[in-house]
Amino acid sequence: MQDVSSLVAQAREGRPRAVARLISLVEGASPQLREVMAALAPLTGGAYVVGLTGSPGVGKSTCTSALVTAYRRQGRRVGVLAVDPSSPFSGGALLGDRVRMSEHASDPGVYIRSMATRGHLGGLAWAAPQAVRVLDAAGCDVILVETVGVGQSEVEIASQADTSVVLLAPGMGDGIQAAKAGILEIGDVYVVNKADRDGADATARELNHMLGLGEARGPGDWRPPIVKTVAARGEGVDETVEALEKHRAWMEERGVLAERRRARAAREVETIAVTALRERIGDLRGDRRLSALAERIVAGGLDPYRAADELVSGLTEG
Amino acid sequence: MQDVSSLVAQAREGRPRAVARLISLVEGASPQLREVMAALAPLTGGAYVVGLTGSPGVGKSTCTSALVTAYRRQGRRVGVLAVDPSSPFSGGALLGDRVRMSEHASDPGVYIRSMATRGHLGGLAWAAPQAVRVLDAAGCDVILVETVGVGQSEVEIASQADTSVVLLAPGMGDGIQAAKAGILEIGDVYVVNKADRDGADATARELNHMLGLGEARGPGDWRPPIVKTVAARGEGVDETVEALEKHRAWMEERGVLAERRRARAAREVETIAVTALRERIGDLRGDRRLSALAERIVAGGLDPYRAADELVSGLTEG
Repeated sequence: MQDVSSLVAQAREGRPRAVARLISLVEGASPQLREVMAALAPLTGGAYVVGLTGSPGVGKSTCTSALVTAYRRQGRRVGVLAVDPSSPFSGGALLGDRVRMSEHASDPGVYIRSMATRGHLGGLAWAAPQAVRVLDAAGCDVILVETVGVGQSEVEIASQADTSVVLLAPGMGDGIQAAKAGILEIGDVYVVNKADRDGADATARELNHMLGLGEARGPGDWRPPIVKTVAARGEGVDETVEALEKHRAWMEERGVLAERRRARAAREVETIAVTALRERIGDLRGDRRLSALAERIVAGGLDPYRAADELVSGLTEG
Repeated sequence: MQDVSSLVAQAREGRPRAVARLISLVEGASPQLREVMAALAPLTGGAYVVGLTGSPGVGKSTCTSALVTAYRRQGRRVGVLAVDPSSPFSGGALLGDRVRMSEHASDPGVYIRSMATRGHLGGLAWAAPQAVRVLDAAGCDVILVETVGVGQSEVEIASQADTSVVLLAPGMGDGIQAAKAGILEIGDVYVVNKADRDGADATARELNHMLGLGEARGPGDWRPPIVKTVAARGEGVDETVEALEKHRAWMEERGVLAERRRARAAREVETIAVTALRERIGDLRGDRRLSALAERIVAGGLDPYRAADELVSGLTEG
């Protein structure tokens, strides 16, 4: 057991091992989790959180890495959280194609963390926001949350960011895939990467068309820009950062940023509350209250719904 | 809105439309759900529930149909609930390979229901036991709950029966598949169907070997029998029914049946309670309590865990 307040102090100083330790405490649902979260609360809110999502092969890591470079040129401290819901491997190591991030591995102004949440209690929705809080409290100015695929949970993670970036690449039938996965609703900024390839313009046009469909925007509404990049060569990256900054400014002007953060916090609280209640009910297994209710159901004297009512009303007493 | 008590009375008389209507009310989580469940409670407990699981291709519907024939010969009323978690289609219709069940379609002593639970609130674990209660209250002596595959939820459903039947067929590498899916732990009776095919003996031997592994049974313990069938020709079906009856008698002698039913009821209550709490929390979206908590989190004055505590303790007041 390490002293939480000293860990937090060290994380504030930018010590990567303290940050790593805090994230481990948080994602492992350690007994100190609550203490950690309480200590972090007053230190959070400074970071701008950018979610990146897109199908495998669009060049997400490359884009993320290029964004890190761009932000570092501006002197910002950057956190990268690479979330993979299909992998059981977690930790500070650079996994798989995370290798592209290795150029930043020795930069003390960059903190990179892979997070695998398969089999995680409460899933991704629960763990990732907590890790973001650690990076936020640790003084990151920008946090890039990169998800691996475009499944429902990835979209959920990405949409919990301040700004969501959806990446596409030419010739991958991405338009339809994107529509299917619902990412056309979550993108604040669209990036067509590998724009030097055939079909990049077609992809951008198709995307532009799809974004325009069902459009009924007012004059002050946000129209998601489409940025073309060749991230591997750094092309279009400054334009991407510019688009992100524009979106951030637009949100701040209209109070949208605060609203999104409130909504995000509310969702977090909800998820934690449901998990806590589920655990409390789980603790009742073998408890005589639940056994007695079950006994009455089997005997036909009670139906499971009324039994659940009794159980729920008994929860706050326990 | 139909009168629940008259629906229940009609279902007791064996009117299939009333049964169908009640299951629809139950699986659709209608406003009358609680009323239905309360009305059913005193009428349940008479049915013997048999779960059937196994990989696609082992001949599950054929076996189920053959079991129906055998039970009907004994004059028992039979309910069949075919649960498919991958399909969005639900209802009284005979779907897909359910066609093999069509010989029973005109028999008033047989009630057949397909239940698809994709996208269902709370999933299978929630809906299937409620439908079983309807069939139980409607006077079925035996209820066969057939699941489509051997995924986690199928195994869960099947294991909630009084007796679980696991079906295999020769030459499908089923042994390993079965072990993977964890069905070697849930089977009370094993059926090797298509026993006229090459490899049936090998499959039975392999299964016998696997069941023996890690075995530390006492003298009164249940040793799952392995029955060989050719369900399409009705061979081995009487032996299967006999094995089921033996298991039932064994459970009744030792109080295992009552214990299983209590455990099943407890799980049902748990699932309903968690769903109810989740809904209550969901209802708080837009509520000023949750908004106020979120506001304080964004301002750094509160962490999401303490906020969740406040939310949970406020739930029973609401």
